[in-house]
Amino acid sequence: VDEPDLSTLYRNYLDCLNRRNWSSLGQFVDDDVIHNGRPFGLSGYRNMLEQDVRDIPDLRFDIELLVNEPPVVASRLRFNCSPKGTFLGLHIDGKRIDFTENVFYAFRDGKIVQVWSVIDKSAIEAQI
Amino acid sequence: VDEPDLSTLYRNYLDCLNRRNWSSLGQFVDDDVIHNGRPFGLSGYRNMLEQDVRDIPDLRFDIELLVNEPPVVASRLRFNCSPKGTFLGLHIDGKRIDFTENVFYAFRDGKIVQVWSVIDKSAIEAQI
Repeated sequence: VDEPDLSTLYRNYLDCLNRRNWSSLGQFVDDDVIHNGRPFGLSGYRNMLEQDVRDIPDLRFDIELLVNEPPVVASRLRFNCSPKGTFLGLHIDGKRIDFTENVFYAFRDGKIVQVWSVIDKSAIEAQI
Repeated sequence: VDEPDLSTLYRNYLDCLNRRNWSSLGQFVDDDVIHNGRPFGLSGYRNMLEQDVRDIPDLRFDIELLVNEPPVVASRLRFNCSPKGTFLGLHIDGKRIDFTENVFYAFRDGKIVQVWSVIDKSAIEAQI
């Protein structure tokens, strides 16, 4: 089988997010994607990301650790950003915060089909 | 190089925790282990785990997802347990809760040298 390299695919996916290139999201994300158990599908997933960027205009996805064992990629992402209002129920109000997300992605046919994400809310609480 | 299989090592490490076999912890955890940036060392790491088990007597580590790309293992753990008092600053008071932890482990010479853990606090808040 000619497997695509998931690390490269994943980095291209994050580039797509960092460029806000929503029209290309379907190259990386499956039509039936599930996020934390919620069957969002591509359109719901795109809505989530677009809302994230409205709430956090300077949102940028940076990889701190990447572990690739096909068909699953695990990534530790680091964020340094300024949510405008509330985030995870916390009143941030434009303060710059630094936090991480540990997240797993299952791929099928070169696209993300399932995501299991945990954001370090305790770290954010310690900064506000 | 005769690399040990990190998946097997990691499963044996969790067995060690689930058996509360603290005297064997040093078989799996390096003397200079770092946990979420804190240079605990083996004794500090053991103290952390022993405190966790005092706070949560029915604590059990179960793997939901395991991704192994040496020298790093990423694991999604699922917990179903009843913390006696407060946990992550939340008043649980013996209520049974279900939550996950997404965690990365760097190994060196067959032992855990660094851990990057994020617990899904939002999921717990939704249950209390």
